[in-house]
Amino acid sequence: MLKPLADRVIIKAEKETEKNVGGIILTSNHQEQVKLGTVIAVGKGRVSEDGQCIPMEVNVDDTVMFESYAGSKIQHDGEEYVVMHEKDIMAIVTEG
Amino acid sequence: MLKPLADRVIIKAEKETEKNVGGIILTSNHQEQVKLGTVIAVGKGRVSEDGQCIPMEVNVDDTVMFESYAGSKIQHDGEEYVVMHEKDIMAIVTEG
Amino acid sequence: MLKPLADRVIIKAEKETEKNVGGIILTSNHQEQVKLGTVIAVGKGRVSEDGQCIPMEVNVDDTVMFESYAGSKIQHDGEEYVVMHEKDIMAIVTEG
Amino acid sequence: MLKPLADRVIIKAEKETEKNVGGIILTSNHQEQVKLGTVIAVGKGRVSEDGQCIPMEVNVDDTVMFESYAGSKIQHDGEEYVVMHEKDIMAIVTEG
Amino acid sequence: MLKPLADRVIIKAEKETEKNVGGIILTSNHQEQVKLGTVIAVGKGRVSEDGQCIPMEVNVDDTVMFESYAGSKIQHDGEEYVVMHEKDIMAIVTEG
Amino acid sequence: MLKPLADRVIIKAEKETEKNVGGIILTSNHQEQVKLGTVIAVGKGRVSEDGQCIPMEVNVDDTVMFESYAGSKIQHDGEEYVVMHEKDIMAIVTEG
Amino acid sequence: MLKPLADRVIIKAEKETEKNVGGIILTSNHQEQVKLGTVIAVGKGRVSEDGQCIPMEVNVDDTVMFESYAGSKIQHDGEEYVVMHEKDIMAIVTEG
Repeated sequence: MLKPLADRVIIKAEKETEKNVGGIILTSNHQEQVKLGTVIAVGKGRVSEDGQCIPMEVNVDDTVMFESYAGSKIQHDGEEYVVMHEKDIMAIVTEG
Repeated sequence: MLKPLADRVIIKAEKETEKNVGGIILTSNHQEQVKLGTVIAVGKGRVSEDGQCIPMEVNVDDTVMFESYAGSKIQHDGEEYVVMHEKDIMAIVTEG
Repeated sequence: MLKPLADRVIIKAEKETEKNVGGIILTSNHQEQVKLGTVIAVGKGRVSEDGQCIPMEVNVDDTVMFESYAGSKIQHDGEEYVVMHEKDIMAIVTEG
Repeated sequence: MLKPLADRVIIKAEKETEKNVGGIILTSNHQEQVKLGTVIAVGKGRVSEDGQCIPMEVNVDDTVMFESYAGSKIQHDGEEYVVMHEKDIMAIVTEG
Repeated sequence: MLKPLADRVIIKAEKETEKNVGGIILTSNHQEQVKLGTVIAVGKGRVSEDGQCIPMEVNVDDTVMFESYAGSKIQHDGEEYVVMHEKDIMAIVTEG
Repeated sequence: MLKPLADRVIIKAEKETEKNVGGIILTSNHQEQVKLGTVIAVGKGRVSEDGQCIPMEVNVDDTVMFESYAGSKIQHDGEEYVVMHEKDIMAIVTEG
Repeated sequence: MLKPLADRVIIKAEKETEKNVGGIILTSNHQEQVKLGTVIAVGKGRVSEDGQCIPMEVNVDDTVMFESYAGSKIQHDGEEYVVMHEKDIMAIVTEG
């Protein structure tokens, strides 16, 4: 199991086909794709300059949207994970 | 539904024709266009270096003005949204 | 009406001819022009890293001096406005 | 023995073959490899701008994941160690 | 009259001939000239990240020394003024 | 005698041959050498942004490891010293 | 007389011949020379981000060592002075 450090998040990326996910077709401004994925693991949060741990906004199982160039990819049993800092996540995709 | 993270905002961009919106024709200094749009969703705000959450200035339904290069575009049911940080928004367009 | 965000200011720029404005002929060090204009609207101020709102120095109706490359231009009813951060304003031009 | 300074960590890097380590095959986003290694020694932590020592997250004997370009390599009795700042470590690999 | 903003200073620059000013011949390290001038107006000071106004060191009528590339030049009734941030002023030239 | 300023350290560098020092052969990641040396003098420490003096980790007589490009070299009676900031020191080499 | 601003120091530079000064021959790492000089005047110190004045480490009459590229040169009655920020001074040279 992977425990991300500081404000990092581990995400299981959705397949890259431009499919309509909850009505959202993902094309990014700079012709790179915006992607969706599910949060698998979340770090404790980053520590600010006056020593405070800044809590994370995302939680495990959230569906999140991020720029495709963000983070580093690792593969595990044929599944693709991305490890990135929370600041590279644009939004949480909620039902309704 | 999209819930933007930190100080991000989701905006429904107006069409790009140089139409007169409440008397405002938008041309930007650097020959890119300044745009108008309606705020659809607002993040909690960014967290400062001493752990404080800095409240957002814009609210849902505000009409805002921003530089056209700002943020990342996503499309949903034929509508175009832009996801950007609040610091890229220049002004709120109010009536009168 | 435009309500500037954070520490932004909306200025009605004077015409660019090198005319003598209150005895001031504006040529900038780097061969771009220094300009004059009147403040139309002022933001609340920027928020510092420890969450304090830092008050603005300029007020509506002040005549101010700024570097010509500063800010973004918008046009409204044939008039030209510039939207910039207060830090790009060099000085307030007062009478006497 | 090496005592790393500030927020540095000394890691015994795993061999670079793309072998399956606890189910994790390491390929990085930018075609450089993501690597695994065991923590040999940990610094006290970095000192923040208001003089606080920010505690480290990793501990001796942790298996950690890091980008292959991170840190500086030293060799000792045929073994390879890498000296890096904690911020270059992506995650801790735990059992289960 | 010009009221400089934040930590800016308005200086009446001395003529650029390498004349001996109070025993000081001004040549700068990088072959640009170091200049002298008299302070005409002083801003309130810059506001630090925790909202404090940091007082200025120079005062009106001080003779100051600065690098010739510093600031922006404006002309008024044939006189040359320079508008710069206090941090670009190297020293105050005092009598004796 | 040299008294280093702020967080600087004066180090007597070991000869650069890749000899085994306490079992450590020094090759750096970027093909420059990692070096060893003995601390001769230590500064008071740097002053943080809120005015605190941040104590040094290394002490006189410590054997330390640093990247070969770090610091500035001076020679004294045929011996070579390097003057560098503490942040460029990777680790302290201890016995056992 | 020159009163340096903020954390600046005015130094009377020694002649640049590689003479042995108190046993120190000055050659810098990057083939520029490290220099010695005597402190003539010292500023109040810089003001940190929370408004504190950070005291200077060097005093008038100290012999100091600095990189030859540091600061700006001015000449006065055939003597050469350099104006630099204290952070560019490497060490104080003391007797014994």
